[in-house]
This record gives sequence, structure tokens and C-alpha cells, in this order.
Amino acid sequence: MASTSSPTLSQAILARPISGSASNSSSSDRVSLSLSALKFSPLSSSRRASGSSCRRRRSSVQGPSSAVRPIRAAAVETLDTATEASLVEKSVNTIRFLAIDAVEKANSGHPGLPMGCAPMGHILYDEVMRYNPKSPYWFNRDRFVLSAGHGCMLQYALMHLAGYDSVQEEDLKGFRQWGSKTPGHPENFETIGIEVTTGPLGQGIANAVGLALTEKHLAARFNKPDSEIVDHYTYVILGDGCQMEGISNEACSLAGHWGLGKLIAFYDDNHISIDGDTEIAFTESVDTRFEGLGWHVIWVKNGNTGYDEIRAAIKEAKAVKDKPTLIKVTTTIGYGSPNKANSYSVHGSALGAKEVDATRKNLGWPYEPFHVPEDVKAHWSRHVPAGAAIEAEWNAKFAEYEKKYKEEAAELKSIFKGELPAGWEKALPTYTPESPADATRNLSQQCLNALAKVLPGLLGGSADLASSNMTLLKMFGDFQKGTPEERNVRFGVREHGMGAICNGIALHSPGLIPYCATFFVFTDYMRAAMRISALCEAGVIYVMTHDSIGLGEDGPTHQPIEHLASFRAMPNILMLRPADGNETAGAYKVAVLNRKRPSVLALSRQKLPQLSGTSIEGVEKGGYIISDNSSGNKPDVILIGTGSELEIAVKAADELRKEGKAVRVVSFVSWELFDDQSAEYKESVLPAAVSARVSIEAGTTFGWSKIVGSGGKAIGIDRFGASAPAGIIYKEFGITAEAVVAAAKELC
Amino acid sequence: MASTSSPTLSQAILARPISGSASNSSSSDRVSLSLSALKFSPLSSSRRASGSSCRRRRSSVQGPSSAVRPIRAAAVETLDTATEASLVEKSVNTIRFLAIDAVEKANSGHPGLPMGCAPMGHILYDEVMRYNPKSPYWFNRDRFVLSAGHGCMLQYALMHLAGYDSVQEEDLKGFRQWGSKTPGHPENFETIGIEVTTGPLGQGIANAVGLALTEKHLAARFNKPDSEIVDHYTYVILGDGCQMEGISNEACSLAGHWGLGKLIAFYDDNHISIDGDTEIAFTESVDTRFEGLGWHVIWVKNGNTGYDEIRAAIKEAKAVKDKPTLIKVTTTIGYGSPNKANSYSVHGSALGAKEVDATRKNLGWPYEPFHVPEDVKAHWSRHVPAGAAIEAEWNAKFAEYEKKYKEEAAELKSIFKGELPAGWEKALPTYTPESPADATRNLSQQCLNALAKVLPGLLGGSADLASSNMTLLKMFGDFQKGTPEERNVRFGVREHGMGAICNGIALHSPGLIPYCATFFVFTDYMRAAMRISALCEAGVIYVMTHDSIGLGEDGPTHQPIEHLASFRAMPNILMLRPADGNETAGAYKVAVLNRKRPSVLALSRQKLPQLSGTSIEGVEKGGYIISDNSSGNKPDVILIGTGSELEIAVKAADELRKEGKAVRVVSFVSWELFDDQSAEYKESVLPAAVSARVSIEAGTTFGWSKIVGSGGKAIGIDRFGASAPAGIIYKEFGITAEAVVAAAKELC
Repeated sequence: MASTSSPTLSQAILARPISGSASNSSSSDRVSLSLSALKFSPLSSSRRASGSSCRRRRSSVQGPSSAVRPIRAAAVETLDTATEASLVEKSVNTIRFLAIDAVEKANSGHPGLPMGCAPMGHILYDEVMRYNPKSPYWFNRDRFVLSAGHGCMLQYALMHLAGYDSVQEEDLKGFRQWGSKTPGHPENFETIGIEVTTGPLGQGIANAVGLALTEKHLAARFNKPDSEIVDHYTYVILGDGCQMEGISNEACSLAGHWGLGKLIAFYDDNHISIDGDTEIAFTESVDTRFEGLGWHVIWVKNGNTGYDEIRAAIKEAKAVKDKPTLIKVTTTIGYGSPNKANSYSVHGSALGAKEVDATRKNLGWPYEPFHVPEDVKAHWSRHVPAGAAIEAEWNAKFAEYEKKYKEEAAELKSIFKGELPAGWEKALPTYTPESPADATRNLSQQCLNALAKVLPGLLGGSADLASSNMTLLKMFGDFQKGTPEERNVRFGVREHGMGAICNGIALHSPGLIPYCATFFVFTDYMRAAMRISALCEAGVIYVMTHDSIGLGEDGPTHQPIEHLASFRAMPNILMLRPADGNETAGAYKVAVLNRKRPSVLALSRQKLPQLSGTSIEGVEKGGYIISDNSSGNKPDVILIGTGSELEIAVKAADELRKEGKAVRVVSFVSWELFDDQSAEYKESVLPAAVSARVSIEAGTTFGWSKIVGSGGKAIGIDRFGASAPAGIIYKEFGITAEAVVAAAKELC
Repeated sequence: MASTSSPTLSQAILARPISGSASNSSSSDRVSLSLSALKFSPLSSSRRASGSSCRRRRSSVQGPSSAVRPIRAAAVETLDTATEASLVEKSVNTIRFLAIDAVEKANSGHPGLPMGCAPMGHILYDEVMRYNPKSPYWFNRDRFVLSAGHGCMLQYALMHLAGYDSVQEEDLKGFRQWGSKTPGHPENFETIGIEVTTGPLGQGIANAVGLALTEKHLAARFNKPDSEIVDHYTYVILGDGCQMEGISNEACSLAGHWGLGKLIAFYDDNHISIDGDTEIAFTESVDTRFEGLGWHVIWVKNGNTGYDEIRAAIKEAKAVKDKPTLIKVTTTIGYGSPNKANSYSVHGSALGAKEVDATRKNLGWPYEPFHVPEDVKAHWSRHVPAGAAIEAEWNAKFAEYEKKYKEEAAELKSIFKGELPAGWEKALPTYTPESPADATRNLSQQCLNALAKVLPGLLGGSADLASSNMTLLKMFGDFQKGTPEERNVRFGVREHGMGAICNGIALHSPGLIPYCATFFVFTDYMRAAMRISALCEAGVIYVMTHDSIGLGEDGPTHQPIEHLASFRAMPNILMLRPADGNETAGAYKVAVLNRKRPSVLALSRQKLPQLSGTSIEGVEKGGYIISDNSSGNKPDVILIGTGSELEIAVKAADELRKEGKAVRVVSFVSWELFDDQSAEYKESVLPAAVSARVSIEAGTTFGWSKIVGSGGKAIGIDRFGASAPAGIIYKEFGITAEAVVAAAKELC
């Protein structure tokens, strides 16, 4: 399969220097390869593929000039560098045609990116990345993110060739069909081996920053002078669309700040977006911007056929250890299509039978749709044993590590296995009605700090509001370039990037529990990332303080109104609004336990009393009775409150009881959790026969009809807020015990 | 009031060169001024204020070097450049103390920014900007945006000094109080003279891009060789927080692309954010990034006392006509406070009585709180007559313009007066059931193109999805650097920036009707800007296509589920989901008429039939009967649908009627409009006595309880979508006529 001059498989596998590894072989052992004989001629339409040099831009690493002579790939770390050029080309064309054929069969999809990015994809999956296709969750694998997720057929084709079970030939043929494992954009929850869910542009690069952050953090926490047990790269391909999105600038600014040297991003610079040439809306200098962001920038001018330039760029990127690297790879979208390459028409539609034929002719591809030539198949087949060997090697290394560093190994294991330590929930604080009144944001900090002691995977921070969100872990310092072992992450004022970075952290390893924080209203800035948390089953904890008009003077731009409803309407996310200390602890218990369902905690800025009857167990049921002076499940009226308004419901109940009413007070901390309860339980809390129900919540009444019914009344705020001291706004807006009493009296 | 060497008032007013103006005087006529005698000594704590030079970074304009000798402000355009340095200093300190005192009285607010930015604020409002304080909406005024909106006391103080009626002394004393005109962040709808609503970071700079875009567009459309009737600058102050937000990068990338030369942004580089020194999260080179974005960048090293450097920078910025300019002004947050300057503690809290005293001593300020010294008052008092004169001058010019260019003048007038042309709505297309089936996104394009012919203020575009959103105005070209008179705006993949830019366009002049477009699901990327549209009463039209699982293969990342509910829950925004051609036309009628309430149009990717009974008038009522075979307002069942599911309701009704049922079909195109109808009308559509109601909508059922009641049934989708052809997903998810028929039969 490989040419005779190649090292043995295990030599090749171990060619990557690993400190402390007994079988370390230096990179100079490896064979060099000249691809100058490569016969494939660039298409005339590939206007940007004329250069063949790999231009270094203000590189901090001085390599030999590559402008004149053909680059030798000698020192590029690969599994097998001696593959014949013609076989590389054949493999690359296999990738292109698997994408073309799948999109054609579905008559839907994006062939352009896979056709243009096949060379870098091939090099990554065949030569550079370390992974085990039959064990896709192996902890120390290199991570790959296709931020330009619409080009997912690239990744499916690569995974198919590499031997992932999740992408068989029938899966390729079922591309974008009901029930297939190959949806229209990469989805980690559908296709094992896909790391994160992309498609919405810019999310993937930010996820990748989260993955790379995690590697740097875990490496700093767990690696030992004699054992680099955590040691992988994060690779990402992003396009012009990702570059235009603000989220990518946020995340990349942080990546530069943190010096994530093992993050290597390929920017598919194809100059085409859906509306046509990027000239119409995107003429900035991306290179200059990334230099400003603190990245190392390399330009591969010929991404279509310049395999060696791509290899050299990766080598250079790896040599730069203190900065992330952007490899701008100029490609031709739809490379190979004689009539559609380099145009928007190849971006997001099937080529059409005629153009598929023309492309087959143009690239000299005589095969049937979905055919993988035998030599290509044979060539890629080594990844299954190679991957198994890589993992076995690491497992042996970990066994050694475990012997020497028992405690650290146990902690790391809990992170990569995703097992919560027994009894962790006992760390949660509890409160009595005599405990001092406090804002739930402060109570939240007590929970976070209590949990940080028992949950090795808990880390996170705020978007420049740590002292308002109360999210600092007091026993830890800041995660920074020079102190990556610490757990307080400083995101700056970058909510969207923060959310997507946390998705990356959560999906790196199942035992990681990232949290992030801002004012509740600013979930609007990060909603796209939060929705992906929910979709991709990333159990991020969103600590959202200043959750109502109760924040007071900052006014309507800062006061959430519709936000509770907007998350209650979102699938697979838990919206929790605790009322006091016990409920805050309960919210954290729920959030930590739900590793595949993100939680949003809405927390008060203002002080709240510790209420009688609240409990962690109650929170776990979503809605529960905190007090009741009725009997036989027949109260005269049910008062329902959440968060800071539960106190108001309690006060109103006291008032009504004085007047002889049988009143039940229900805390409705999480609608989703209540929905999950049995019909019997629901009936025990909200009996169908009792239509006299009053809800109170300092937010929109939208949605409350379901709870209070046609016979009930929802007290809330269906307008924007106002700038004034909180107490005055509450009064002016009628969010008062008097209003609840009056409404209750009307109903019973 | 002004020193004797100053030019007369009207000379000063007219000193700004205006082509075609008879009283044009060249800038060399103006007096020069040396401020080198300025005695104020920088605080020791202002660590970044040591330099005094204005460093030019790769400037395309070669000015005299300013590094050595004191800069002369000779050629800076000002109303009155000859103010004595001591009076400037006194005015700047007045601004500082008005801010300090107001925050202190409110015991809430952000004194740090006003204290640091008072010098640039003073220069802008006192020397540079053209405005009429007694006529704050004068069309050709310079626009000012405080993107770092938390520092709003800066702007309130400046407006107070300048003579705006909206900010009297009692308003300053009522800062952040119920009912005052001085809320905690700048709100255009509360305080006349505030241009846009800021506070959520990054929004303001993007609004400013919209304001500057509008100026460039209107100037290109309406200016004549002999009359520059549109000619103003847009100034903005933004801080580190704004710079970190992705939205600002999006908007600034566009500003560079469009070459908005009359946009001048002051970056308050104070190195402090809420969590402390920006070193912890923000170490990128902003200068380099902005150069990459195509901006001209200037650094004023001493923003605390370097008045002349600030003036010189503005002059240089104005000389660069083809690029926006970023003036990085290094300041000390809380400048003047001996113990709190240059720390986060001065960012967002009152100084406290003790520190206020210390600051008074430190800056030599003997006055009572809220006192404006007489000489400062006298100095600023000229802005009322000056502003009136500026406007009168422009009015005279416009009268001339109107005589020569009648048609253009009428059009421009309709833009700055906000009057819709009589009979404009007749341009809207209508349809019959025989009209061909079509996607509402295509029908939307018919409406947009029909309206563009009759609405001079209509302009907009898409976030790189014009050909999917169907938003191109066929009779116009692209708004680009070289063709700014055109009306198709190409936003690139920058949804958030797009929304905020449209807010800026809408708030520039009341006759402007900006629209913008993306896939409905990507409203998540721009929700913060959309919320501000709703809050700040900007009548932006959001054209949101691919509005359900009906988009098919792109899968769950692209399929909205909770989005309809999430906008129905938001105050002051109209969520419209038309079902066919007539309803799409109706949605546009509503959207155009609602100039203070943004509209979101959810439009289908897939073809829909033209239904019998739909109408523009129906849409205006939000919910209405499209067919009914019952009598006496007593149908057996009411079927309620929206958008693409109204067709399904119609089919189900046909089925049920065949079986002898009396069925009413209601189109529920906009909940908000229905809510606005009389109780009688509502009862006529949804009689209380009829509890058998079935709703169908391809989105979350969240909220529908209110409409269908406890006795009804809501058919919808309470999970994420799937990647497959649309028809299959509809069937698999049970969004079918059969499901409606079955549900109806259970209820009646």
C-alpha cells in the first residue's frame, strides 16, 4: 500500500515527538518527498491559483524561503509522507466526487467547498491528524471542526475514507435524507466523530477556540515533566462567511490573547459567498486583522494543488507555540467544475447531471457515483490499525501516569469519562428562613464556589461582569496565557463568543462543566450559541443575573422582559428562575446533572428573603407547593410565582389567609421540569378543578395562559421597562402583593 | 462672551466650507490659537497620559509632524476657536462635575467615562458639531452617538450646556429617576436630541455606521454640483467594551468597505473595563485591526488634557475623505478623582461623598453640585442663536434647491418629514386564488419591488442571502463606495451589524424605511439589534425567509422552532406570518405604516397556493375569518393557522365540512394586531362560547394556549427540526391536514 521507502506503520505513528515516550523518533528519521512531478494542471478558471509559493507574513519563525524551488515536505509530521503524488491526487478527487455525488443524489447541498478544500482536508485526515476512527471519542485525539459547516460533505467523505463507522457508503447515499447519519450540516449528536454542530456561521471557529482552550487548560493541569498526557491540536476550516461574523472576531481575539498555539485554522479564501464575489461586501484585509488579534498568519497561495505548501504551512504553524495560526488558503470554490468553479452557483446547489459529467471529464474521473477506487481505499485503510495503535500507545502511557500520579489520574479520568464524583451534591449549601436575605446572584456564587471544590470539570467566567454576575471561583486564579491551569475564564465583553467557546469546552470531554455569565438581557447577544448548546446537547450552565426590572436604574436596555418566555419556548434547554438560596442550590443541582441539556439560571440583582418551604427537591420537580392552608387538594386560589416574585406571592397569600381564604403558593421555577413530571404529580400541584389561579412574574405574561388557564390571571409586564430605582418600577408596573390580592379576590 | 479676536458669530457659523454657498469663507480666514499656556497639570495617576503627541499611524494624509512642538488648532473647523484655554478647562470640568453630581445624587450610574471623555465631548459639542439645540431634529445636523452609552451623563451634560430643552437642570437632578428625561442609558424616545438608543455595547457604533451610510446615500442621490444639500458628519464615542463586541467589528468592516469618510469614531482607550484592566481579556492591537478593516487610524496619546491633539486629529480625520477614521484617544477613566481614577471602581458606581470632595479639591472646583459657572454658561449660550442661524442658512439653501430641483426636493422632503406619498399602498400587488402558487419570499420580492417605485425612503438588503431571501430591488444597483446613490445594500454575513445599521438608517430621518433580511433562524444572531429596534421605535422591516421546517434539508441548525413565539413575546414589535400573496402584501402595508414599531415578516421558502378569503384588510386586523360554513357565530370548530400552515387548515376544513361540520378557518397572521382590536371584533372571530379550537403552526406550541384555550388543541413542533426534504419532515412531525381533522373530531 505505502511505497517501500516509507517507515513501518508503528514508526510512522510514533514519529510525532512525545516527551517521555520510550519510542520517540526524531523527525529527521522520516523520508522526504518531492511532489514536483505532480502532473495535475490547474484549471484555467482558478484565477487565484496561479502562485505556488507559501508566503509567510511577518512570521516569527524563519524557515527556508519557499518562493523559488519546489517545497519539500520532509519535516511535515505525517503518518505516511511517502504516498505517491498521483495517489494523493486520486484521493483528493475521491473526496471531491463523493461530495459531488452525494449532493447530486440529494439534489441539495453545497459541493463548492468540498471541491475546493479537498486538498487541505486530505492532508489533515490522511497525513496530519491523530485519531482512532473506531474509537472516535478517544480523549487525546486531535479535534477537527468544519466551521463552514455547509461543506459537511467534505468531512463525511473524509470520515468515510478514514473508516468511521458512522459514515458508511449508504450514509453518503442518504445525505440530507430523513433518518440518515449525514444531515445537511455537521451535527455531533447525529454523527459520531463529528466534534461540534456547525452551520450557523462563525460558531465552529469559536467552538474550536473552546476546544483549544480546554487542551491548554488540561495540559497545564495534568501534564507532568515526564508525561505529556494531554497533547492534541485543534484544526478548523472556516470560510469567508465565518470571517464576516462578529462571533469569529470575538473568539479569535480571545484565542490570540490566550496564546492558543495548538489552534490551527485554515481560512478557505475562495472569494465567493452566496451573493457573489466577496468584493461586494468583504474587502477588509483579514491577514492584517488577524495580526492585530495576535495570530500568526500564513498565506498558501495555491490551495487547489499546492499540497506541499499546505504541508509546509502546517509545519510552520506547529513551530509557533505561543500564538494560534491562521493559514489563509486561497482556493477555487467548486475546483474541477469547468463551468461553475469560482462562482456562487457552485456554493449551495447540486452541479446538475451535465456539469457533473463535465467535471468528471475535466478531472479525469471515470468512476461511477460514490465509487472509491481500490488503491485509495487501500491507502486509507491503514487508519484503522494506526488509530488503534495510537490510542493503545496513549492508554499505556496513561496507565504509567496513573501509577505515578494517582490523584491527578483519577481527576482526569472523571473528566474524560464524564463521571460525577459520588456525593458531589452534598457540597451544595442549604438555607433556612432564618438565613440572611441575599440576592440569588450572590447565592449562586456560593454554589459555584462550593461546587468548584468537588467538580474537577467546573470552569468558566463572565463577559466582563464577574463582579456583577458574582461568578469568580475564589480558590482559583485566572485562566491566562501564562496561567492556563486556572479556572476563572475572563471572556471580555464578548457574549456570543463566550457561549460558543463554552460549547467547545463542554464537547471536548463529557466531564467538563463550563459556565458563563452576563446580564440576562444580553442573552440576546449570544442566543445563537445558546440555541446550539441546546441542539448539540452541550450542558453549559448560563448564569444570567440582573434578571428583571429589579435591576433598576440601568433602564429598559438592560431589563429583560420577554427573555424567560423566549427560553421556555426553546427546545432542550432548561430555564430556571430560583427564588432564594435553596432554590438556587436546586437549580445548580439540576444544571450539573443535565449534561446534555444546557441550563439558564435567571438570578436577581436585588436581595431576596429565604422563604419557608423552598427546597432543592422542589426545584427538581420544576413546580411545587411551598405553602398551603387548604385541604383535599381544593384551595380557593393558587398563587404561582417564580424567582424574585415568589416572595410577593407569599406576602399576598398571608394577606388572603388573614381574610380566611384557603391559599396555595406554588413556586414555578422551571416549566420544562414540571412538564416532565407525571400527570398525577401535576394534578397534585395544579388541580384541574381549581381555576382560580394567579401568576406573578416580572416579565412578559406571554405563555402563562397555559398555567393559569382561561379562568386565571397572569400578572406580568408586557411593555419595556424603565430607568428608576427598582422598588418604584415594581410599584408603578403593578408587580405587587396588592395586585395579587386584588386579582385573587376577583377569582375566588 | 467670546474673546475679542474671534470672528463674528455668523462668520464663524459659515466658516465651514459649503459648495455653492454665497457666504463661503475659507478655513484660512480663521484665527489660530495656542493652548500651550494651558496650566492644568495631568494627574499622577493618569499613567497613559504622559505623552502629548498625536501620533499618526500610516496616515494617508501627510500633515506637519506634531511630535515636538505644540500643535496649533488653526485649521480645525470650529464655531469659535478663540476660547481661552482656561475657559475650555472650566467648561470641561463643568461637564465632569455635572456627571459626578448627577451620579452621586442618583447613587447610581457611571461617572468614569464622562470624567475621562469630557475633553473630546467639549470639543465636539462646543467647537466642531453643527446642530440646532432648539430644533434637535433639523435634518442636516451632525449626528452624535455615544456608543459607550453607560457614560450618558457626558451627553446629558453637553446637551444641557448646549441648550437642549430636553435636559434642564431638574432633569440632571432627576438622573435615573422615574419619569425623568435622563434615563440610565441614552434613549432617543425619552430624550429629544439623543439620536439612537445605546447601552448594550457595540450597538451605537453600528448605528453610527447606519447614520453615515444614510448621509452618503442621500448626498449622492440629492446633492447637485451647485448645492450640497446633504452634508453632515457622524461622530461616535466608543469604548473598550464596544470594541470587544463582534457587532462592532461587523459594522466597522462594512464602514471601511463602503468608505464612509464622514464617520469619525473616538475610541476611548482607557484600558479599564468592569472586570479591571483590559490586560486580562483584551490585548489585541485595535489599531492594526482597524487598519485591516480599511479605516484611517489616529492615536491621540493624551486625551485628558491634549485639547489641541484632539482638534488636530479631527482635522486630519476630515481630510481623509475615502475612509472612516478611528481616533484612538487614550484617556484616564475617572480623570480627576485622586483615589479612583484609572480603576474599575470609577466605571459604574457613584464616587461617594468623600471622593467627590477630594475630586473637587483636586480639580479646583469650588462650586455647589450641579452648578454651571456663569462664564461657562455664557460661553455655551451662543449655541442657541448659532444653531438657529445654521438651520436658517440651510433652510434658505433648501428653498433655493427646491426652486431648481422640484422633484428631488419633494422626494428629499418626504424623507426628512416622514410623509408617505398619497396612495402609495395602491402599488401593492393583489392576488386571486387563480394566481400561481408561489413562496411568500418571492411574493415579498414582488411587494418590495412595487414599493420601491413609490417609497423614496425604501432601501435595504440581505446578509449575503439576497438570492435566497429575494430582496433585490431590480431597478436599483448596489450601494457601494463608488455608487452610494443605489439602494441595494450588501451586508455580507453580518446579521447583527445589519440590524443595528438599519436602526441607524431608520433613525436618521423619519421617511427612511430600511429593510434587512436573512433566514428566520438567524434572527438569533441579531436579536439584540432587533430588540433595540422595538425599544427605540425604529420601523425597520425584517424580511425573514425560510421560516420553518419547510426549508427542508439544511436541517435543525437552520429551522426555526421557537422564533415566532420569541418575537410575539417581545414588546413593540410586529410578528407577521403571511400565508400567501394577499397576506404578504398586507404584511408590507402594515410594516410600512408602522414607522415606530418594527415588523418581522416570516416568509416561506416553499411554494404556497393563493388562498380564497385572504386579504390585505384581514392582515391589518391580525386575525380574521377566511372561510366559514357556520351561522350565528357558532361554528362547531375553529381551525386557526398561520403562514404556510393556513393551507393545511383550509384542507382540513374542506374535509370536515364534507363530513357535515360547521367549520371556521381563521388566519392568525399577527397576534399583536389582533390584540389591538376591539373586544367585539375579537369575539366575532373567536367567540368565547366556541372552545373547540385547533391551531396549526410549524413552530413551537408555546403561547398558543391563550388562543386555543384549555378546551382546544395546538398542533406544532416542540422539538428541534431535522434534515430531510420538507414534505417528509412535515409528515413525520405530524403537521398535516389529517392531524388537524383528527384533533377537530376529538373536540367537536
